[in-house]
Amino acid sequence: MAKSTNKSALSQHKGISASENVSDSAAERIKNLRKRKQNTTTLLQQLLNGNKTALGKAITLVESNQVKHQQQASEIIEGALASAGKSIRIGITGVPGVGKSTFIETFGSHLLKLGKKVAVLAVDPSSSISKGSILGDKTRMENLVKENHAFIRPSPSGDSLGGVARKTRESIILCEAAGFDVILIETVGVGQSETTVHSMTDFFLLLKLAGAGDELQGIKRGIMEMADAIVINKADGENLKPAKNAKLEFKRALQLYPAKGSTWKPEVLMSSALYNEGIAAVWDLIESFEKNTKKNGYFEQNRKQQSKFWLLQTINEQLKQSFYQNPEIKVALEEQLQEIFDQKTTPFIAAKQLLEKYSKL
Amino acid sequence: MAKSTNKSALSQHKGISASENVSDSAAERIKNLRKRKQNTTTLLQQLLNGNKTALGKAITLVESNQVKHQQQASEIIEGALASAGKSIRIGITGVPGVGKSTFIETFGSHLLKLGKKVAVLAVDPSSSISKGSILGDKTRMENLVKENHAFIRPSPSGDSLGGVARKTRESIILCEAAGFDVILIETVGVGQSETTVHSMTDFFLLLKLAGAGDELQGIKRGIMEMADAIVINKADGENLKPAKNAKLEFKRALQLYPAKGSTWKPEVLMSSALYNEGIAAVWDLIESFEKNTKKNGYFEQNRKQQSKFWLLQTINEQLKQSFYQNPEIKVALEEQLQEIFDQKTTPFIAAKQLLEKYSKL
Repeated sequence: MAKSTNKSALSQHKGISASENVSDSAAERIKNLRKRKQNTTTLLQQLLNGNKTALGKAITLVESNQVKHQQQASEIIEGALASAGKSIRIGITGVPGVGKSTFIETFGSHLLKLGKKVAVLAVDPSSSISKGSILGDKTRMENLVKENHAFIRPSPSGDSLGGVARKTRESIILCEAAGFDVILIETVGVGQSETTVHSMTDFFLLLKLAGAGDELQGIKRGIMEMADAIVINKADGENLKPAKNAKLEFKRALQLYPAKGSTWKPEVLMSSALYNEGIAAVWDLIESFEKNTKKNGYFEQNRKQQSKFWLLQTINEQLKQSFYQNPEIKVALEEQLQEIFDQKTTPFIAAKQLLEKYSKL
Repeated sequence: MAKSTNKSALSQHKGISASENVSDSAAERIKNLRKRKQNTTTLLQQLLNGNKTALGKAITLVESNQVKHQQQASEIIEGALASAGKSIRIGITGVPGVGKSTFIETFGSHLLKLGKKVAVLAVDPSSSISKGSILGDKTRMENLVKENHAFIRPSPSGDSLGGVARKTRESIILCEAAGFDVILIETVGVGQSETTVHSMTDFFLLLKLAGAGDELQGIKRGIMEMADAIVINKADGENLKPAKNAKLEFKRALQLYPAKGSTWKPEVLMSSALYNEGIAAVWDLIESFEKNTKKNGYFEQNRKQQSKFWLLQTINEQLKQSFYQNPEIKVALEEQLQEIFDQKTTPFIAAKQLLEKYSKL
């Protein structure tokens, strides 16, 4: 179904040029279109062969806001879909300073030794402003970045978390089609981005420090509830004892949460990414999670639910955008708001009138 | 603006009958319409005179799902709006067993003695199933219910919290227009209903018990954050000492929350509604809140924000409803979901196609 529509989008272009006098520029446009189509096909082929440069270019198309790029991106994604979905997608979060980069560097290197191909993506809606607070500085993972079987990509910049989320989700597909079988998605312990990453990953890992100031604990509660594992990082030297205490504490805290749909009981581990300690155990745990949830059907079911979530989410966002960005509605909305403030109408009556107006536009 | 549309809704009816042969039934319909209009005008007049029976009838119209009742309700609300808005709206919540009914009974009686007119409404989305878990049993407030200057109304039954919320918000307007100057809105400490009540009240009161099992504390955090005051009820006899400890604990906990837009610092009080202790202090606190927030402009600003919230909320809900309840979309959505599950398309491409289809319907 997707494919046929895609074709019709192309024939629409042809239709437009045919209805004009076939001028040079129209002919040229068709030529350009064919050339672009050819480029897209080549790029897709290279990507499916595991070419990292092609993967990078394809992600750039996904991230672009230009219509022609989006069209190319759609074509590539559709071509990639059949080869995608076979990785394990791991979300990794933790407040700044917890050692995410070092953890990913060490964890990623461990996976490479096991023969895995590792892609590292990021979701950081703030990066469009701060120009890349996470993963932006690739030197932070200087070993991983040099490896042939590792692919590292900073967070797409986007005006909204929704935009960043879509781009990241589509990049996951491209990475998978390029043969990467472990996808790590990093995010920062701030705001809504955890929920977003949680809803696009199979396993959610929360990095913690022992004895860190926990005024933020309240906010973190929701995140703890999402975690499939908590890893207390920097558990070395003087930190080892506090880390052990923290481990017990978190274990107790996790027991208060209701059982997960996966029937998986979240575990608490300790690691020292700097000294490469406890890293193998994290991967063992994730493998055990994957095995369990694939056996009980949750793995597949969860991915379906996530897809449905993103479908509905995208529709809902678009419905609102179409309404609120309509110029006539914009004016009418302001008028109605004023009427409400002046106590001449109620929000419910005003809503009804605005929707009636919208349906007639 | 609202009024003129209202007129056009009526003339539409006239238009329909004029285009037919003026049969008996058409003539009758006009007659009925005029009669209904007359009834509505009379009802509104009685309501504005403070007639409780008329107020009850008007709220019944608001709660009805019949189109003709909704039309009458809209007319009454529009007529009531100019006289509304002058009360203080107080949200009261707490888990079952905290003593909400007794508190409201004692608190309400105190207000009556001060010469106030007190309306008690409820938001309980579960009541449509359980047939009134709160306020449904009026005998629970047997003293208040006998008072001429008190009006008690159980939660409207509705299929959704959104529906209940709209009905309650419009009932507030009617109560205010009938001269009630303190509106108490009771809700249960479960689910989303607190957020809903918070977004339609000026002051949010959280009732607590000392030493109650706090496994729910995690869920309650969000509610604590909304509270303008926490009242530890049943602070009498053997409970007094634990209540004092709880007071200190809650005070400490509240300090961790960020400052409110109202600049109001939430307070913790103790009460024994059963022995009428600490009740006057609660009202004094609310009066001080009202004075402060009216002075710094927050009171008015908050009401405007609430109105805007309800306007947008209603629009968003309706936009979704129109989309998802469209029969053709329902079918297409299922098809697209299957395509996604079969990895033939992505949620984002599918969303785009569904929205294109919808725009052409």
